[in-house]
Order: sequence, then C-alpha cells, then structure tokens
Amino acid sequence: MTSPDTSRSDRYPAGSAAFPHRDLTGLAGLAPWEILYLLDEAQQWVELNRQSHKRMDRLKGLTIINAFFENSTRTLLSFEIAGKRLGADVVNMHAAQSSVKKGETLIDTAMTLNAMHADAIVIRHQSSGAVRLIADKVDCPVLNAGDGQHEHPTQGLLDALTIRTEKGEIAGLKIVICGDILHSRVARSNIHCLTTLGADVRVCAPPALMPADIEALKVTPYHDFDAALAGTDVVMMLRLQQERMEGQFIPSPREYRHLYGLSLDRLAKAKPDAMVMHPGPMNRGIEIDSTVADLAGRSHITRQVEMGVAIRMACLDVLTRKARGLEGWA
Amino acid sequence: MTSPDTSRSDRYPAGSAAFPHRDLTGLAGLAPWEILYLLDEAQQWVELNRQSHKRMDRLKGLTIINAFFENSTRTLLSFEIAGKRLGADVVNMHAAQSSVKKGETLIDTAMTLNAMHADAIVIRHQSSGAVRLIADKVDCPVLNAGDGQHEHPTQGLLDALTIRTEKGEIAGLKIVICGDILHSRVARSNIHCLTTLGADVRVCAPPALMPADIEALKVTPYHDFDAALAGTDVVMMLRLQQERMEGQFIPSPREYRHLYGLSLDRLAKAKPDAMVMHPGPMNRGIEIDSTVADLAGRSHITRQVEMGVAIRMACLDVLTRKARGLEGWA
Amino acid sequence: MTSPDTSRSDRYPAGSAAFPHRDLTGLAGLAPWEILYLLDEAQQWVELNRQSHKRMDRLKGLTIINAFFENSTRTLLSFEIAGKRLGADVVNMHAAQSSVKKGETLIDTAMTLNAMHADAIVIRHQSSGAVRLIADKVDCPVLNAGDGQHEHPTQGLLDALTIRTEKGEIAGLKIVICGDILHSRVARSNIHCLTTLGADVRVCAPPALMPADIEALKVTPYHDFDAALAGTDVVMMLRLQQERMEGQFIPSPREYRHLYGLSLDRLAKAKPDAMVMHPGPMNRGIEIDSTVADLAGRSHITRQVEMGVAIRMACLDVLTRKARGLEGWA
Repeated sequence: MTSPDTSRSDRYPAGSAAFPHRDLTGLAGLAPWEILYLLDEAQQWVELNRQSHKRMDRLKGLTIINAFFENSTRTLLSFEIAGKRLGADVVNMHAAQSSVKKGETLIDTAMTLNAMHADAIVIRHQSSGAVRLIADKVDCPVLNAGDGQHEHPTQGLLDALTIRTEKGEIAGLKIVICGDILHSRVARSNIHCLTTLGADVRVCAPPALMPADIEALKVTPYHDFDAALAGTDVVMMLRLQQERMEGQFIPSPREYRHLYGLSLDRLAKAKPDAMVMHPGPMNRGIEIDSTVADLAGRSHITRQVEMGVAIRMACLDVLTRKARGLEGWA
Repeated sequence: MTSPDTSRSDRYPAGSAAFPHRDLTGLAGLAPWEILYLLDEAQQWVELNRQSHKRMDRLKGLTIINAFFENSTRTLLSFEIAGKRLGADVVNMHAAQSSVKKGETLIDTAMTLNAMHADAIVIRHQSSGAVRLIADKVDCPVLNAGDGQHEHPTQGLLDALTIRTEKGEIAGLKIVICGDILHSRVARSNIHCLTTLGADVRVCAPPALMPADIEALKVTPYHDFDAALAGTDVVMMLRLQQERMEGQFIPSPREYRHLYGLSLDRLAKAKPDAMVMHPGPMNRGIEIDSTVADLAGRSHITRQVEMGVAIRMACLDVLTRKARGLEGWA
Repeated sequence: MTSPDTSRSDRYPAGSAAFPHRDLTGLAGLAPWEILYLLDEAQQWVELNRQSHKRMDRLKGLTIINAFFENSTRTLLSFEIAGKRLGADVVNMHAAQSSVKKGETLIDTAMTLNAMHADAIVIRHQSSGAVRLIADKVDCPVLNAGDGQHEHPTQGLLDALTIRTEKGEIAGLKIVICGDILHSRVARSNIHCLTTLGADVRVCAPPALMPADIEALKVTPYHDFDAALAGTDVVMMLRLQQERMEGQFIPSPREYRHLYGLSLDRLAKAKPDAMVMHPGPMNRGIEIDSTVADLAGRSHITRQVEMGVAIRMACLDVLTRKARGLEGWA
C-alpha cells in the first residue's frame, strides 16, 4: 500500500515514483503529477477511515508536532486524528500559551521544536510566509496548515479529492470560487491546485475583495455572481470572515448575502448537477443559505471534512517516508 | 471479560445480554437492569485501574472525540484517561478555540465531527438538550458529559457504583441530596438513577433552589436540612456554584453554610455509618466542612473520582461494541 | 538498558544501583552520585531520540498526568514527548480551565489526580513549594516542572548533561550564571546541581536581583559581569522576565543589556572555548546578543532543548520503576 499501484503509474513521469519535496508549504509550483500523487495516496485512507478499526502502525515511533500559532478547531482536529490513525506520537503546541508571547522569535521557536527531534511539524500561523521561514530552519518535513493569506495546501488538496471523487476528472471542469478572494488562503490554494489540474476556474468577489493582480493566477474574475455561476460544475463558497462584515470591505452582511450569497434560485444558474462546496465553518444565511448547504446529493460539505483526514494522512505518510528509510524526497 | 458473567445474569431480563441503547444522553428512562448492567461492567475496570499496567487494546483503532463546549478539568481528564486506557485514539476539542465561536451552528459542528469518522463523541455543553440534538445528527454513540441543567449521566452512575461498593445494595437506602437542586444536572442524574434502583431519595434545598415540580421526580423535598438528614444512609452534597452566591438565590455563603452546610454536628443526625459524598470541586467551608470532607471511613469523595474513570471506561466499551462487531445496541 | 552499565558502577556507592527517591521536587540535597545516576540514564535516550523510530513500550500501561497550573510551552511539550516516547498514556491538565479556578484547594486537586491512579504526576505551579505539598498527598512519583522561585530540577539536570557532553566532566569547571538570580528557579536548580558536582559556580546579577543569602549556596556573587566572566568555561544566561523590566528591579532593558547582556566582546573575556547557554525563551538583544546566541560551536542553546527530552525520559523511567516491579525507591 505504500507505493502507488501500477494502475496509477502512467500518471507520473518515468522514474518518479516518489514525491520529490520535503515540505508542503503550498500548492503553487507543484507539477500536476505531484498533486495527483497525493490525491492517489489519499484514496487508501478514505477507505481505511470508513472501517471500524482505523489505526496503522506505519508512523509508529515518529513524533509529529502540531504547532498552531493561530486558533483552529477543525484543521487541528483533522491533523491530530490523521497522525494518530497512522500510529505517530502527536503533540499539540497551542499558540495561546506559547513562548512566542514571551517575546521569543519565530525562528527560535522553530529551532526548539527541531531540537526535540520532531519527524514532521504542522504549522498554522497568522502571517503569510511564516511556514516557509520555519521550514528553512528545521531538519524535518513541514506541513502548512494555513499561513496568513498565503496558502492552505491541504484544504486545496482535499477539495480536489472531493471533486475528483464526484466528477472523475478535474481537467475541463468549470469551477467558480466565490467570496473574499483577496484575503483567502483557501482560495489561493484552490486556484493553484485546480488550474494546475486543468480546470477552468472563475473567481467571484465584490471589487474590494478581489486581488488587483488576479489575472496572473490564470483565472477569470467576476463581480456578478449570476454571470460567474452560469454553466459551472462546481460552486465553492468561501467563508465571510467576521472582521470583513463591519463596513470596511462590504456594506453589510445582508447586502453581501443579496449579491454573493448562494441561494437555491441562484444555484439553478449552475449546471443541474453542480457540486456545492464550503470549507467551513459556514455562516448559514450569509454566504450560503441553509437549503443549499443541506441539499442532498448536491452539497458535499461534510464530504470535504471526510476527505480532509485522508489527505492529511497521505501528506504525513508521504513526507515522512524518507525518515522511515523508504524512498522519499531527494 | 466483555460479556457480563453468569453470576450477574439473573439481574437482566432473559435474552438481554447487551445494552440496548446507542447513546448515553441521560439516565431518565433507563430500566433498572440497564443501569445495573453498566455498574457491573465497570467493576472490572475498577480492578484494572488499581494495577500498574492498566492499558487494554480493546478499543484500538477507534477514534473518540471529547467535544467540550464548556470548560471542565476533572470530567475531561477522566474521559480522556478512560479512553486511552482502553487503547482508543482520543482527541480533545476545546470549546474556547471552537468554530462555534466563529458562528457555526452546533449541528454543523456535530456533522463535522461525524465526518471525521469518530467512533464515539463525548460532549459537554452549557445548554440543556444540546447533547441530544447532536446525537440525533451523528452516526456514532454519543455520551453526555454534562449538558446545562439537564443530566450528567456518568456522574449518576459513578455515584451509584460508589454507594453499591460500600453498601452492597442501593434498593432501600435512604439517600439525601442537598444543595442547588434547581440548577444541578448532577442532582437530576442521581435522582433518576437512585430512584430507579429503588432508593428512598430526599432532596434538600433552599426554597429558591428547589424545582417547582420536584415531586414528579418521586423524591421527597425538604427545606430543613436537619430533618432531611435524619436516619439517612448516604449524604450527597452538591457544589454551590459561584454565580448563585451573589444574593440572587441565597442571602450569602455564610448564611448558606449555616443552614445547608454539612458540619460534623449535622452529620450526626444521619445514620452512624452514613456515607458522605460530593461530586467536586468542593467549596470547603461552604457546603461542606473540611472535617467532614476528610473524615476517614465516612467520606467517599476521592473514591467517587476513582469510580468515575471505571464508569467511563465501561460506557465507552459498551457503547462501541457494535462498531467492533460485537453484540450491542440494536 | 534499564540498569546502569558496569562501566558506570564505580560512580555509585556499593549496593546503591537504584535511585532512592520517589519524587524529584528539587536538586537540593541530592548526593553527587544520585545526580550522576540520572545523567547516566539520560544518555541512552539522547541516542534513541536521534533515531527515526524513537518509541519504547517501557511505560506502556502507565498514566502520566502533566498538571500545569502555570502556562508553559516548551517544558510541557518536552515532558509530553518524553512520556509518549516511553509508551505511557500522557494526559495534560491545563491550568486555565482548572477546577482550581472554581475555588478548589490545591490538595483537593492533587487528591483527584491521585484517585485517577496516575503513575506519575508532573507539576508546574506558580507558588514555591506547591509541588512538595502535592507530593506529600499522593501515592505516586511527583516531578517538579518548575515551582515559583524554588526549583526547576529537570532544567538543572539537562544543563548539567549538556555541559558534561561537551566538557567531559563538570568537577573543576568555572561556570558563571548571569541574570535575575533572585527570582530564578532555573538558577537555583543549577546552583544546587553544579556545586554538588564540584563546579566553581559564580553568579552575577544587579544588586536588586541578587539574593541576600547567596553565599550560603556556596557560590561567588558578582555585580560586575566582566569580572565574573573572566576565565570561565561556561556562561549561562538567564531570561529577563518581562515583569522585571519595568523599572522596579532594573532601570531599563537597554541599561540591563549594557551591563549584563552577553555580547561578542564580552564573551571574549571567558575562555576561548567557553560554552554559551540559555534556558529559553530568549530575549535576543536584551540578555543575549543574536551573534552570540547563534555562534556556531559555542552556543549550546538548542542542544539544551535536545537534552531536555532525554533527561525527562530518564526521570520518568527511573521514578516509575517501582510501579513496574523493578528495583526503585525504597
């Protein structure tokens, strides 16, 4: 089960059976086959997680540190469960009690985690680029669990896996991502992932929440949600952060909902079998109506959570292979 | 060790070797044999916990999520130790960092935990009924670790086990529960448990802290603690919550202690071998005097804590049997 | 691997193969051989921790409770990793949510942890002596992870191990400890440890941060850091606590740095191969300059962190031997 099975081998370049990177700090720059490799690896964990006995000893003896400098519930839980199901010793470092508060530099914190001989460090941080900074200082694989407005690569991967599971292939799909594109690391990772895999990606946001350089990302920008929805296979809604709701970026939550909320009526503009996705936690009644969020057969929101654990298991497994004496990053 | 031994079988109806409920959200409505079944199961864990090596692989491969929306130390610790001693992967979700704070609905949180393929979810929540609400939405057993003023079933069970260990039988005992009956989920679970097992239960509280419909619970209400104590076998004191001490419900802690605190003098009105119990944490010098709390041979307060771990092990073991392919709830 | 190997046996008195104390509440009063015994034991864990697979089943079945009444990141993480690598079930009790906040006495909290059948309790507390108080009430080994201004014994041991690893022997070394000697439990544990092992220990602090009775500790006090540094083999800098920087004890951080900060120039007054140490987290630019903190071959600050995990593994292993039926404290 460790190496990709032969039926998948034609997706990867000759001689490249192993994932070639030590860290997963972002999806930008990954080759299509590298992303597919991680999705393929996750498949086995989707199946394991649906069984009663879902624990392997594969990472037994390894120490994984979840260093969360920014509060998180679901992502931390997902990584913790992923590490434990693979048999690793998982320890969580909570930001609120962190030495960082005592004036320690981020690099010193990183050096400390490194000196405890972690075999993988999972980091969430409020600053874009902080994860890369840490990765450059430590001796073990580093996984980005979300850094500022930069990337949230496992979210991008789990979304891609959710789509692939439903649609078979990602290439050629029309996918719209709607919400606060400007500040969203989820949007950024999804854009990199989905365009790399050949999807036709549209992004939709109010003018104040659209990046100025958006076209450089090879996506088509829209301000009119109805136009953006037309003929899409997948509708990904983003969470509207509380701090954007207070008049600085949008007039009011009510106005936002009117223009950019996903209602049943609006969803009808997408393809009849269009998937509805949301990274959670949802603001029901703001960016997404409850009738849509709960729409059987169309809403894949809880499926995304399920895929999240599998993707994180795949990433932890793949990136720690070298430490376990298996073929891994060079 | 999994199934009740034959010496216990005459307590259960013919053909009912397995506990018939998926969840443990409360003790109200449980049949006497169902409560006895859980107490009987706990016995083996009391013994295991007293040994040096106290870890089983029984729940290996299962994921237990402790979702505590309300802060707790001892109950969380007790459930976490219980799960780990049975070999499960235990993860804690802390309320303070919870997505709930980000405006997520409780049901969405529940759906998220469910999608991670938890095998049991232990929930503490400040709202009465929240645990039932979650249980109705998820696919795995749910254990109530205290919800609002509703129930705290494992506390009721551990108290019953503590009493049974000391007194042999619960039926026929005279038991007084004294304190803030109105707001206490501990009182409620104990009332259901002890009356179901045939005890003669008295409750004692100041008028403002006594539920209006208390007689419906088949207990005898008292406002005079001395009268309530007369001839009792067990004296259960409740914790006076800080927020009740500020004049709204009681005049002052000093006044409360005078009327409802358990002193040595007052304890003398109970039977000479009456057990003293308290769910903790204690306000020494308010609801209970230190001389009573520490009275050797009479105070069973630390014993209650010990029984707590065993009861939680029993509940986790019994409720996850079905997931493990054993006979369980239908 | 459990018992010290024969090559070490001549360091210990005849017939004293086992560490004779149940608790590790401080280093004051330990015999030299007892300290050496723990350092010797740690050596095997240094080596294990450098391997990929670093998990033993030695403490399997035991429950270790980390009861941290004072926030901590690195010490908690270090103890948690240590316990898990030895195979124990480790549970953390966080102060912020603690029942202590609900008015429970420290002793009641201790009794509660004890009743859950912990096999070792690791305690950090803001009050000097709190750990001893708890140790006197429980049935299992207690390890002090820092109590007020009293002791932080595992820090003293890990510092000694770091020095011994570099210098071979501690006896005869000239070691200066500089900083807030008055309030520092790290200084206190190091003074006990290093003087017991025969080092010539100097302490250096501004007058307001030097204990009045310092000479009783068999160290030489200095107020002039340049004089204190002259000819030393080891320079241990202490963290300047934020709360001392506000004019009560020192005029200003800038003034402090000028007089007591370790710069490259100042380090030149020590021996050319003098080791630089700091317990972390560092205030770079206050008590230590970045050029010194990062000085290759001279700064042993991350090495200290590494030794910390090994020392904690040694302490947990040694103190739980009796519970595991091996030779231990009498």
